[in-house]
Amino acid sequence: MNARSPLSVAALAERIDGTLHGDGTVAVREIVSPEAARPGAIVVCADAAAIAAARAGGAAAVVVRAEPPADLPAIVVSDTRLALAHLLDVLGPRATRPEGIHPTAVVEADVTLGAGVTIGAYAYVGAGARIGDRTIIHSLAYVGPNVAIGDDCEVHAHASLREGARLGARVIVQNGAVIGADGFGYVLRPQGHKKIPQVGAIVIEDDVEIGAATTIDRATLGETRIGAGTKIDNLVQIAHNVRIGRGCVIAAQCGIAGSTVVEDGVIFGGQVGVADHITVGHGAIALGGASIIGNVEPGQIVMGYPARPRREFLKAEAALRRLSQPLRQRRGEEAERP
Amino acid sequence: MNARSPLSVAALAERIDGTLHGDGTVAVREIVSPEAARPGAIVVCADAAAIAAARAGGAAAVVVRAEPPADLPAIVVSDTRLALAHLLDVLGPRATRPEGIHPTAVVEADVTLGAGVTIGAYAYVGAGARIGDRTIIHSLAYVGPNVAIGDDCEVHAHASLREGARLGARVIVQNGAVIGADGFGYVLRPQGHKKIPQVGAIVIEDDVEIGAATTIDRATLGETRIGAGTKIDNLVQIAHNVRIGRGCVIAAQCGIAGSTVVEDGVIFGGQVGVADHITVGHGAIALGGASIIGNVEPGQIVMGYPARPRREFLKAEAALRRLSQPLRQRRGEEAERP
Amino acid sequence: MNARSPLSVAALAERIDGTLHGDGTVAVREIVSPEAARPGAIVVCADAAAIAAARAGGAAAVVVRAEPPADLPAIVVSDTRLALAHLLDVLGPRATRPEGIHPTAVVEADVTLGAGVTIGAYAYVGAGARIGDRTIIHSLAYVGPNVAIGDDCEVHAHASLREGARLGARVIVQNGAVIGADGFGYVLRPQGHKKIPQVGAIVIEDDVEIGAATTIDRATLGETRIGAGTKIDNLVQIAHNVRIGRGCVIAAQCGIAGSTVVEDGVIFGGQVGVADHITVGHGAIALGGASIIGNVEPGQIVMGYPARPRREFLKAEAALRRLSQPLRQRRGEEAERP
Repeated sequence: MNARSPLSVAALAERIDGTLHGDGTVAVREIVSPEAARPGAIVVCADAAAIAAARAGGAAAVVVRAEPPADLPAIVVSDTRLALAHLLDVLGPRATRPEGIHPTAVVEADVTLGAGVTIGAYAYVGAGARIGDRTIIHSLAYVGPNVAIGDDCEVHAHASLREGARLGARVIVQNGAVIGADGFGYVLRPQGHKKIPQVGAIVIEDDVEIGAATTIDRATLGETRIGAGTKIDNLVQIAHNVRIGRGCVIAAQCGIAGSTVVEDGVIFGGQVGVADHITVGHGAIALGGASIIGNVEPGQIVMGYPARPRREFLKAEAALRRLSQPLRQRRGEEAERP
Repeated sequence: MNARSPLSVAALAERIDGTLHGDGTVAVREIVSPEAARPGAIVVCADAAAIAAARAGGAAAVVVRAEPPADLPAIVVSDTRLALAHLLDVLGPRATRPEGIHPTAVVEADVTLGAGVTIGAYAYVGAGARIGDRTIIHSLAYVGPNVAIGDDCEVHAHASLREGARLGARVIVQNGAVIGADGFGYVLRPQGHKKIPQVGAIVIEDDVEIGAATTIDRATLGETRIGAGTKIDNLVQIAHNVRIGRGCVIAAQCGIAGSTVVEDGVIFGGQVGVADHITVGHGAIALGGASIIGNVEPGQIVMGYPARPRREFLKAEAALRRLSQPLRQRRGEEAERP
Repeated sequence: MNARSPLSVAALAERIDGTLHGDGTVAVREIVSPEAARPGAIVVCADAAAIAAARAGGAAAVVVRAEPPADLPAIVVSDTRLALAHLLDVLGPRATRPEGIHPTAVVEADVTLGAGVTIGAYAYVGAGARIGDRTIIHSLAYVGPNVAIGDDCEVHAHASLREGARLGARVIVQNGAVIGADGFGYVLRPQGHKKIPQVGAIVIEDDVEIGAATTIDRATLGETRIGAGTKIDNLVQIAHNVRIGRGCVIAAQCGIAGSTVVEDGVIFGGQVGVADHITVGHGAIALGGASIIGNVEPGQIVMGYPARPRREFLKAEAALRRLSQPLRQRRGEEAERP
């Protein structure tokens, strides 16, 4: 990664739509975490301890939500995490990227490559694939026959995009992810389970990110679809014929079983399990570890095994805790309740 | 993928052992899902809504379990999913496969290749490996030294078969699966945990399918074994010295700890955890998310954390729900019970 | 794998710090599991059944914790698993390893290679990487730009070490593991979630082992760090900015969310989930499947969803079980309790 040219605090304030306090001419070369504060660096501070750390390290400036310190150049913003994201875009190290088509890349017949495509060493691009402008296929990635990838995508090393997978623009596929392997479908029989061929589509819409070693299966027939802007963490399993809506956030190790529909804007904490053939409504939230075995209403917050509304879960938990206390203690406690 | 030649409805009825109703001469070119129904396509219908969709789309014919519609050629079968599987075999797109040994494949010394073996670009086959007739090793797959693979297997891109792994015939290994990595064995010590070398075998019997990014470790000593016809989904962990029986079905993200025995015909839903050194009896079923910490009797259906028989789990759930209701409501409810 | 030269039982007793009983001159060629006992082999026996199996198979000698059999050469040790580990080091098959730099390996500019480094076929080593003495990079592994790897490491096929990752000495990375992919950080917004660039470090200290298809993300800013001697099983997720202490043991499919601190000597069973921004104290133990949503005290043993101290969990479980019994049965049971 390479460093950027320095910018003044005033220029940064403008870039992140913040209000400048103090000396705007101070030069900022980098952004660091509070504990790594040093001269020339700007620090985004979520609390007073972070400001103290920034000051102790001699930081050039801080970004805060309120109460800018008097002794340091400061930028006040309404959302520190958004400011962090923008500052990292501007000041963060620029990734060193391969450029052009590496001589060892195998690009089969009838492949359409956009302008400025990069393909790394020992990457494989199957016959009939189409790769959009400025897309980067890293070393050792596998792009199967007839895969279509949009503009400005990045496919990391060891990712597998199976035959016919379709990716929109600005999709990021982290290392080891598998897009479009066969769904898990068999007719169970005593004489040997019969595989149901998995010949359906897999569609990843624009601006989706897919985490490392996450697996998203192709459909049996029809399609598996991940809606635009959805972000998926590592080691997530999405089964055949699942439809995920737009703008969802799915944390690591979630598993979503076959043909289930997850509507727009749903958020799953880590290790959530979702049964097959159900619907999780628009804007619902499942806390980490929830096991969803039936439909979830739009906007509902659920947790537990099996998952139920949070309020109901917490009441059951409290009841169980009360119950497991010694009888005398329990009586005393209940006497206090009306 | 390439399309097949059209077949008459009558010919298809014979292929799938069904009863023809209506015009058997209509030509069928493809099989599609109900929502994609169109002329020339056959649709397998699980319910009346699917039949309506097939009719609306102008499908050439439908497959149903009972009550064939009078206005469409129809095939009546006893098992629609089995019919689906057979129709996909006959009508589904044929996968485009690499053919022969790609010039970039590395095949080390003393490798034995059967007739009609395919090895893709940048695949690696280690010294002493044996690969059976018609087996396909896709691009970028790793076949370690002395691995033995039977006839008609398919090993997808980025799958790793570690040194000495033994696979039977008709085994499918999806992308990113790891067969035969070291088991997780250490002697725990304050001065540093001591690794127990993992030098045992890993045996995958005939007709097993292994999902994407699934990991099956080699044994410490002795062997890890997956029985014939067992189907394993994505992101499953099977630890060292586990023995899985024949014809089991293991859904995504299950984890089975060391030395456990899973007998024939066991079914695990997604995200099931199984403790080490226990036995899950023949034909048992664990519902999704169950945490099995002790032996399970043959044929038993278990769920919950820790897993217990389903009936027992549901009773405890009901009791807990009752308990967490307000006292007055609870009394009223109990009054209704004898 | 290749066999070793035979050793006498007396020599082996000395190597594993045990006490010899019976004829020390008997030659031992291999170590096998009890069920595979045969002449020339030594068997480590955890119980009487194993000794019987060793005797029945004609084993050359046994290793036991107490009561050595009179009819077989035996070594008595205080820790049979430690003896097993040492005997496998001495007698186990020696892995066949690639040697030297394979002609197809791509090693980019400015790479520093230590003495005796091995790089397999189609491995990729990015610009500016440093690889320590005797380290083995297996075929098809990906070592990104500016990665630093210490001495005596082993990186297996299909492992991805992303740009700038730093590994200490004697680190083992199993197949398909991903070290340093982007952390999962976004500013959630109705108009589209904004990615927070992930530009921090990822540090793996000495003597760490990382399982197959395990994913450890780089930090947003600052670092993600795995402490010396920690052992991590397969399919584990470790999020950005997590700090794992020294000598921890993390079983398969655990997930640890962002910025959480796991202190030294912690042990996690399989499928444990840990929330973000919490601390798991020194020497704590979480049993398989626990969902940790708050700080855990040093030395505490926790289980359940949400995780609580084991004793508390078991009391609640017992209370729930009692409650779900029929009322009459319950009364009778309670009458027996003081």
